Amino acid sequence: MRKRVAVLGATGLVGQRFVALLANHPWFELIALTASEGSVGKRYVDVVRWFVEKPILEELRDVTLAALNADALVKDGVEIAFSALPTEVARGVEVELAKKGVVVVSNASSMRLEPDIPLVNPEVNADHLGVIEQQRRIRGWDGALIKIPNCTTAILTLSLKPLIDEFGVNVVIASSMQAVSGAGLSGLPSMLIIDNLIPYIEGEEEKIESESRKILGSLGHRSIELNDHISISTSCHRVMVLEGHTIAVFTGLRRDASLEEVLRAMSEFRTNKIKDLKLPTAPERPIVIRNEPDRPQPRLDRLEGGGMSVVVGRVRGDAALRGVKYEVLGHNTVRGAAGTGVLIAEVLKERNLI
Amino acid sequence: MRKRVAVLGATGLVGQRFVALLANHPWFELIALTASEGSVGKRYVDVVRWFVEKPILEELRDVTLAALNADALVKDGVEIAFSALPTEVARGVEVELAKKGVVVVSNASSMRLEPDIPLVNPEVNADHLGVIEQQRRIRGWDGALIKIPNCTTAILTLSLKPLIDEFGVNVVIASSMQAVSGAGLSGLPSMLIIDNLIPYIEGEEEKIESESRKILGSLGHRSIELNDHISISTSCHRVMVLEGHTIAVFTGLRRDASLEEVLRAMSEFRTNKIKDLKLPTAPERPIVIRNEPDRPQPRLDRLEGGGMSVVVGRVRGDAALRGVKYEVLGHNTVRGAAGTGVLIAEVLKERNLI
Amino acid sequence: MRKRVAVLGATGLVGQRFVALLANHPWFELIALTASEGSVGKRYVDVVRWFVEKPILEELRDVTLAALNADALVKDGVEIAFSALPTEVARGVEVELAKKGVVVVSNASSMRLEPDIPLVNPEVNADHLGVIEQQRRIRGWDGALIKIPNCTTAILTLSLKPLIDEFGVNVVIASSMQAVSGAGLSGLPSMLIIDNLIPYIEGEEEKIESESRKILGSLGHRSIELNDHISISTSCHRVMVLEGHTIAVFTGLRRDASLEEVLRAMSEFRTNKIKDLKLPTAPERPIVIRNEPDRPQPRLDRLEGGGMSVVVGRVRGDAALRGVKYEVLGHNTVRGAAGTGVLIAEVLKERNLI
Amino acid sequence: MRKRVAVLGATGLVGQRFVALLANHPWFELIALTASEGSVGKRYVDVVRWFVEKPILEELRDVTLAALNADALVKDGVEIAFSALPTEVARGVEVELAKKGVVVVSNASSMRLEPDIPLVNPEVNADHLGVIEQQRRIRGWDGALIKIPNCTTAILTLSLKPLIDEFGVNVVIASSMQAVSGAGLSGLPSMLIIDNLIPYIEGEEEKIESESRKILGSLGHRSIELNDHISISTSCHRVMVLEGHTIAVFTGLRRDASLEEVLRAMSEFRTNKIKDLKLPTAPERPIVIRNEPDRPQPRLDRLEGGGMSVVVGRVRGDAALRGVKYEVLGHNTVRGAAGTGVLIAEVLKERNLI
Repeated sequence: MRKRVAVLGATGLVGQRFVALLANHPWFELIALTASEGSVGKRYVDVVRWFVEKPILEELRDVTLAALNADALVKDGVEIAFSALPTEVARGVEVELAKKGVVVVSNASSMRLEPDIPLVNPEVNADHLGVIEQQRRIRGWDGALIKIPNCTTAILTLSLKPLIDEFGVNVVIASSMQAVSGAGLSGLPSMLIIDNLIPYIEGEEEKIESESRKILGSLGHRSIELNDHISISTSCHRVMVLEGHTIAVFTGLRRDASLEEVLRAMSEFRTNKIKDLKLPTAPERPIVIRNEPDRPQPRLDRLEGGGMSVVVGRVRGDAALRGVKYEVLGHNTVRGAAGTGVLIAEVLKERNLI
Repeated sequence: MRKRVAVLGATGLVGQRFVALLANHPWFELIALTASEGSVGKRYVDVVRWFVEKPILEELRDVTLAALNADALVKDGVEIAFSALPTEVARGVEVELAKKGVVVVSNASSMRLEPDIPLVNPEVNADHLGVIEQQRRIRGWDGALIKIPNCTTAILTLSLKPLIDEFGVNVVIASSMQAVSGAGLSGLPSMLIIDNLIPYIEGEEEKIESESRKILGSLGHRSIELNDHISISTSCHRVMVLEGHTIAVFTGLRRDASLEEVLRAMSEFRTNKIKDLKLPTAPERPIVIRNEPDRPQPRLDRLEGGGMSVVVGRVRGDAALRGVKYEVLGHNTVRGAAGTGVLIAEVLKERNLI
Repeated sequence: MRKRVAVLGATGLVGQRFVALLANHPWFELIALTASEGSVGKRYVDVVRWFVEKPILEELRDVTLAALNADALVKDGVEIAFSALPTEVARGVEVELAKKGVVVVSNASSMRLEPDIPLVNPEVNADHLGVIEQQRRIRGWDGALIKIPNCTTAILTLSLKPLIDEFGVNVVIASSMQAVSGAGLSGLPSMLIIDNLIPYIEGEEEKIESESRKILGSLGHRSIELNDHISISTSCHRVMVLEGHTIAVFTGLRRDASLEEVLRAMSEFRTNKIKDLKLPTAPERPIVIRNEPDRPQPRLDRLEGGGMSVVVGRVRGDAALRGVKYEVLGHNTVRGAAGTGVLIAEVLKERNLI
Repeated sequence: MRKRVAVLGATGLVGQRFVALLANHPWFELIALTASEGSVGKRYVDVVRWFVEKPILEELRDVTLAALNADALVKDGVEIAFSALPTEVARGVEVELAKKGVVVVSNASSMRLEPDIPLVNPEVNADHLGVIEQQRRIRGWDGALIKIPNCTTAILTLSLKPLIDEFGVNVVIASSMQAVSGAGLSGLPSMLIIDNLIPYIEGEEEKIESESRKILGSLGHRSIELNDHISISTSCHRVMVLEGHTIAVFTGLRRDASLEEVLRAMSEFRTNKIKDLKLPTAPERPIVIRNEPDRPQPRLDRLEGGGMSVVVGRVRGDAALRGVKYEVLGHNTVRGAAGTGVLIAEVLKERNLI
């Protein structure tokens, strides 16, 4: 029997990615879509500006948009709520739902750094989901709250994990070139970005630096413990690309590694055995290596693994940091948001945590 | 009396920048424009695809394009030749002209690393022009050959110089986001760059790393000595911007510096006293600091100082490298090519080196 | 003595074009800039996102933004108010100012079609300004209200006028490709226009069709009489261009005309003798003809005549409509808005109508 | 048994579309891919820059590129050759293949207007294929040569055909906004199109006007007779869109028609009964009507019907021409080239013409 799920904030870019991924999902049944007040009661197809590559599933077109009401969702039997709510709206309702027994998997940035709230990029730290037990005990919740990382953080940490596991990483310098979809449907006026780039995304660098330390940290006795062994510094830029964040990564490694070893570690990456779990949304290869000199490129590579793989290219030695440098690309609203959320829910179910 | 000058390869993007900068120049008189064979004998205005912001000077429109012939140029009394020739064409004719007494200021990448050929970004290392004496002696030339640095290198080294002088720099990690004009008029097909970026520019990273070491090196007894104290690592990207290269720079400093000290060092930067020389093409401020959180931006800032200033923003501390990080933007065909070339010639003249 | 003028709504794209055109104007002294409530009391430079090619005039940077208050403006001695207000705000305050003796030159679309409100594209119908006398009588105003045409309409009618005058035009079919700046600073999200175009601009086609009939109409005894002899049909599109609207125009002519006659009529266009008035903002040539096969192009031609000329190219016969077809380009926020507004005020002053 | 087919010029944008459409085709077996000399003998995957949305079929990656040699192709048993050759190369080899018994379906513009060479947009004029018999007789060919229309012409004529059939059309005014892919992989430098559009495509307007008259003409006794009842005038523009040509169409109709009648005629369009033939590449609906005010849009609609449908929107009355105006969008390398070619071959086979 499929679990009953809802998407909160279903009309935005991340919301519609959730909808696309959950339509016809073998384990989840999408029974409710919420929207902001002005849209409640309207048909989904009449409100959403659909940007996903494949068309809206026929049976979802006519779904009536529901209000964001925890009681009503619980009454309808919603077991998992995928939240694409704006941060300022998210906190209250997500906590209320968790209290009332719903498992909330949320893309909102609120509460991401609290030590009993797992912040999960499944292939990197699915084991952090173990903190839920503690979360329930402390907070007295019947449900749970799990956070999806910031988009760039998800892409970066997935690419770093095999290097950390195999060789140790002491320093990471990363410059991101992020797609306009990361700012939301109306977030970035075209006047600002044509023949231009913007070397600043509010709060982004702080999120990457702090969230990475949590994701790359370890599951302690009662909470997630931050990684104190890695020093990360970033610069974030908005560029004229629709979807797909590219990151130029420079790393210092703790032990010498040949390029062959690095490439092998990345392409055979298996931590958390996500792949072996046969989860519907898990990509065959979480990290895909391209050997051409000019890849990855956002338009050509962002849909690799259905948008769930990150694509790495140009791996080469870095004498300045005594490590390797490379480019990594990921789909910011799939791997960087909705796709990771659905994958989290699949892990929870497969491991009988829900 | 104005010196008689020529532009070699006058129709390309860098060539037309030379023409725009030399039209009505107080010290130089533009008497010859050369073009490739198919265009010789035609009017400049009929051949050039003019991309400079201000219109072609009226009196240059009707100039007849000349062949690339060293003897003819010498016969016409050309004293300085500004070269925007393609690398594969440049080497032979530039050497021939230098031999025959012409001072060649060249943007072609050939011979840039030879120890007796000065590679000059005037505010950074105008003193390297002193090697010309040695060059003439060794090579038996009456003229001289001076090279303009790679575009990204010119922008990067100008921003680094005050940090090196004041605090010492041991490591530089730089990710560039380069304009399409850097690939030349027809260098980058639109199919490749719309909704995309390309994380690779052939030979660029090698150029930045090796040329920077030369520019930031010192004038030795008989040649330029490379800087061995600085370790530079780069990643270069092509983005959909017409003009203006942006670089995300991370540095490690040799001694602690407050942000105020760093900002002051950059904005008061005076090495080589270029500004005091009152050269026509020298910008009032070689480094302009913007304090807004989202600057510099290529479209808004690339023409600062007539395209000769670099614009620095987002200066902040960098814990990972124990230094500072910042964004720097420069106009790639002005500061990164033709403008620096004209400035070099002005220094030569002012210092009576020609 | 210069007349004291204000810009209403000075921070938007059209507002800042007014400011740029009025800074250092020989006949007008810019004494007040108004902004929406949240910005009142702040410095202009701190609020405006400046997009004009040349920098803000130094002395305007520190101007304090004023509230939109008719009494206060009158008290400050404002004689002419240039309005870039949003339509919904404009109507009330513009009428109030006109009542109180101020001459309002407005870019807001409200009231554009009322028969005693002149809608003026100076080279085309400056004579319509004569209706002001009637306007004052009917409405009991001491000031006056003059409207600037819709951007595309201004460009189109300027190109049509010589054809109407010389050969007669019975039908016009026009497809516009309009710049994103026409939608205002934040009007068009980048997600909607990258790798795309939008074949619809709300209300635009209706505006062009109805406004053109008024502009191309005649000054009757008591009001502007619409042109009933011309049939205009349009399709409007938004394309990824920053500034400059391009229109593909097809016309049917009432009498046969050779291409030479058409080109001459356009390039020698002199109706309303605007050029002879030596107005500061009037372009030397209101219509500039380009003979290259691939011009006009927005990026290359939009600043022709300081943005006040329209550029016409590809003039060729049209067998289907028995007339000519051509491309016309104009700068949408200069000729299509602020520049035309300033030119109107200059005509008013030169003709002693104010 | 599947027919053996080849793609001539398989690496360009149209060539790779042919390959994508013919991979796993139920009726055709792709046995040869030719390329220009420098690529012969290399693997397809190593030469092609793949731009199609779905990945290259695994089994085609390793195909060795063949030389363009008619004898070799015949020897290999090629029965149908799909040609994406450049015009200057096409003529000779296409005729040679047709002589030697191969049916050539060609996208090259050479010979398109010859009266015994069918120029076919299947839903519009599949009946013109009947002229092949005459072609073989006159020219003494065992094979045949059929031409695919110019891309814009294919899209335009498909949208016009139901109007012609139901109401009569006397005049068509069309302004196209064409994607950069129409210029080929390297045809349009990015410097020319960023923040710009180009109001000219060499030869395009002439092609649309003359080819439309042939496609909309009738199959006479011995040749295709041109349509003399329709007058077509066009303006063509290149805009910054990757794929998908948009056309603003204005028509004069011979008899009055309500919008409902027009919409019905378009959406129920069935001429040539292509749909009833159940051809693999025929779209369910050749013309798809969108009712939203701002559609069709290239990025959102170009893949409708697998790229084989044209999408029509904004149908409204046109008082100037006494007809209707609308927007039509089609995929320029599918409906406008390779897709139409494959559909032609399917018709030929279904009707036993080959």
